[in-house]
Amino acid sequence: MTDVKGLAVPLGRRLLAEGVGTALLVTVVVGSGIAAQRLSPDDVGLQLLENSIATALGLGVLILVFGPVSGAHFNPVVSVADWLLGRGNATGLRGRHVGPYSAAQIVGGVVGATLANAMYDLPAIQISGNERVSAPVLLAEVVATAGLIAVVFALVRTGRLTSSAVAVGAYIGAAYWFTSSTSFANPAVTVGRIFSDTFAGIAPSSVPGFVLAQIVGAALGGLMIRFLYQPLPMITFDDPGVTGPV
Amino acid sequence: MTDVKGLAVPLGRRLLAEGVGTALLVTVVVGSGIAAQRLSPDDVGLQLLENSIATALGLGVLILVFGPVSGAHFNPVVSVADWLLGRGNATGLRGRHVGPYSAAQIVGGVVGATLANAMYDLPAIQISGNERVSAPVLLAEVVATAGLIAVVFALVRTGRLTSSAVAVGAYIGAAYWFTSSTSFANPAVTVGRIFSDTFAGIAPSSVPGFVLAQIVGAALGGLMIRFLYQPLPMITFDDPGVTGPV
Amino acid sequence: MTDVKGLAVPLGRRLLAEGVGTALLVTVVVGSGIAAQRLSPDDVGLQLLENSIATALGLGVLILVFGPVSGAHFNPVVSVADWLLGRGNATGLRGRHVGPYSAAQIVGGVVGATLANAMYDLPAIQISGNERVSAPVLLAEVVATAGLIAVVFALVRTGRLTSSAVAVGAYIGAAYWFTSSTSFANPAVTVGRIFSDTFAGIAPSSVPGFVLAQIVGAALGGLMIRFLYQPLPMITFDDPGVTGPV
Amino acid sequence: MTDVKGLAVPLGRRLLAEGVGTALLVTVVVGSGIAAQRLSPDDVGLQLLENSIATALGLGVLILVFGPVSGAHFNPVVSVADWLLGRGNATGLRGRHVGPYSAAQIVGGVVGATLANAMYDLPAIQISGNERVSAPVLLAEVVATAGLIAVVFALVRTGRLTSSAVAVGAYIGAAYWFTSSTSFANPAVTVGRIFSDTFAGIAPSSVPGFVLAQIVGAALGGLMIRFLYQPLPMITFDDPGVTGPV
Repeated sequence: MTDVKGLAVPLGRRLLAEGVGTALLVTVVVGSGIAAQRLSPDDVGLQLLENSIATALGLGVLILVFGPVSGAHFNPVVSVADWLLGRGNATGLRGRHVGPYSAAQIVGGVVGATLANAMYDLPAIQISGNERVSAPVLLAEVVATAGLIAVVFALVRTGRLTSSAVAVGAYIGAAYWFTSSTSFANPAVTVGRIFSDTFAGIAPSSVPGFVLAQIVGAALGGLMIRFLYQPLPMITFDDPGVTGPV
Repeated sequence: MTDVKGLAVPLGRRLLAEGVGTALLVTVVVGSGIAAQRLSPDDVGLQLLENSIATALGLGVLILVFGPVSGAHFNPVVSVADWLLGRGNATGLRGRHVGPYSAAQIVGGVVGATLANAMYDLPAIQISGNERVSAPVLLAEVVATAGLIAVVFALVRTGRLTSSAVAVGAYIGAAYWFTSSTSFANPAVTVGRIFSDTFAGIAPSSVPGFVLAQIVGAALGGLMIRFLYQPLPMITFDDPGVTGPV
Repeated sequence: MTDVKGLAVPLGRRLLAEGVGTALLVTVVVGSGIAAQRLSPDDVGLQLLENSIATALGLGVLILVFGPVSGAHFNPVVSVADWLLGRGNATGLRGRHVGPYSAAQIVGGVVGATLANAMYDLPAIQISGNERVSAPVLLAEVVATAGLIAVVFALVRTGRLTSSAVAVGAYIGAAYWFTSSTSFANPAVTVGRIFSDTFAGIAPSSVPGFVLAQIVGAALGGLMIRFLYQPLPMITFDDPGVTGPV
Repeated sequence: MTDVKGLAVPLGRRLLAEGVGTALLVTVVVGSGIAAQRLSPDDVGLQLLENSIATALGLGVLILVFGPVSGAHFNPVVSVADWLLGRGNATGLRGRHVGPYSAAQIVGGVVGATLANAMYDLPAIQISGNERVSAPVLLAEVVATAGLIAVVFALVRTGRLTSSAVAVGAYIGAAYWFTSSTSFANPAVTVGRIFSDTFAGIAPSSVPGFVLAQIVGAALGGLMIRFLYQPLPMITFDDPGVTGPV
């Protein structure tokens, strides 16, 4: 997600990509959640299956579309991690761009929920009453975000960015199921989902806990990547497309 | 979808590919819709899940099969966009081929619905009574088509055509769920689906609204691509397979 | 599926690969059908969804595993088509190997049904009472087999064999749904499925009709490939991995 | 899974990767099993569909993340097979590393079950009462493990390691369905699943039978690979990415 250098694409264009991409990600999550809830009223598991498959496919496609422009972060903790993990060799996002990226992502997240509401004939602005915080759920959110950061930067550090669309989509598709929080793992998406009083929403009072858990998870994921993919004293590359730290 | 130049494959062969490909696309959409409706009568969401998975897989395969012959547009708004977005460097469809392409696609769409009806022992010709137009649904159709054009031409402009089969299939699989229109996003398929009075059909009276929304969506998607992937003053390619406008 | 030359891998090893591969394909089809029928007794559509996803994934993996040894035909009509379509440039299966290939596939198909029965604690040998023949279903079987041949040899003729595992798996996953026959499309698998009196079985009296329809479909698919991918007077390759006939 | 040589990455880092990776694999299996059981209480087939899709996606992603560090075995019988099949040309795991790898995998498996329990607010330590042994189920476990070894080492011996994440994930997704044991196929995961008294658990008394069946299956799979992919007297490579033994 960091193969477009700061100089190559003007910042405005990149921020538009982050904003539109995050908006559409939330539209996918919320919109498919509404459809699932309406069409499969008798089985919540089936709703989550429909929602998770749509999200996995949609997120993968959004990364393909916007990746070459902005890196397709769509997520403030990914942007921060990209900056921190890439400082050593100047490959990541510049520190002064982290703020604008995050702002574009959060604004996009809110707009995306509104768009989903409009497409499904719901009030454009609504506030979720879905309380989600509990200790096990916050633990799940830590695990979910650590995993997301590990997936993204394992690929970054081994030069396999062309796999990131499929891998990140697949990861989120699985994480909807193996975590008890259904894996928000993204502060901008979490804020956006406040504005949907449906299956996919989150009450405002649950947001601080979720975001804090996401920050902790991102830190853990980043530390694991730094340890597992640290520079080696001696490197033997058989296939540079598959193997080895950068 | 535009890597076969006008001179390389004779027009007749390309039109056959567009016609057969669009026919089979509608056969997949309508046929899997009939099967879903018959086999899962108790849950409309489950029907849509079955229908969307079959369509995503089938569309991806059709792009693989017919792409090298005709570009696998299967969709008049894709053909028009290919012409308009590729005029600058003569890589797109020629303007005088847009009409024949569209005609082949529309004829194919109608034939495909008939074939699905025949395979499922229904009257070969039938007219849908499924009224679909409302303001939120037309908004959804705008979003669905804008997204389709963005996916296709983001890949075209970054030289990643080998990903188009998977990406377009995945996009439609997601868009069935996140849009309230179930994402027709294609005038030829919309016309074809008139001729199926089932789950997947559309009443003739709803077609003009849908097609208009698709044209608006395609224009929006094309404008976004032109802005995000415009030529850069300075380009640094690290990996030309992933990065950078053409 | 034809990139291993007759001289490279000894015939015995290739026949073992075809036999074991076809056996496991039938085991996947029948075994997952039994599981689906037992675990989801209330919705036949859900059974078919489970059965089709398992078959799509399993078939794709079997092509990956056995492709480099024998070409992973697993299907007499694919072997015949490989011979006929490849005669011109000596790239296909040799004519004298078509018989042994087909025999290994049919024996494998029967063994595979038996293995599935044994794993699910059913009598190892049983005969299906599932009558399937009707005119619409035979039409569906023609369409299903034509499509399969088109997918396989579109990839062969454009040098995209590395996509065949995913493409053929995806095709069958879709064809389970868009054809009313659930897409047998394979005489060896059809014979094997006689020996399962379950969801996935076929009564012996239905087999001749199915096999005849498969032969007609394969011929249609082969003709379409010969027309669409015929040699061109002038070829411009931009990307030989995506474009152009061989 | 063996492209990182013993010298390249220090053993401690590799064991951490095997331990964390196996832990997260069991977390995916058990966690998604708990979610499926809670959310889809009325259809066990739907539960298995949810569980199998999550596992297929999650396992594929874990192989992508940890493969470059440790080979992403996550499974003692894969580690043993890697050692035995790679002895001839010194490409596999070293014999003295098989023990530490297996220990890290088993410890990881237990930790992973505990993590899933904690995320779903269940007692962290619990023992399954799920008796699973019968002759047909043990036969299924032999088949499941033979298939897994065949998939992994068919790719290793043909230099297609970049496909292993997708292929192994897809294989397990199918094998959940076509085997009556739901395809454990992994002694470390089997031991880990003792500690979940849910859908995905296994009673301690069933473990020895399962592990024995897995060892038998691994041996059969390894023998098939040795026979099918043995060195050839004369090799003609058309496309070394697809064809031919190493």
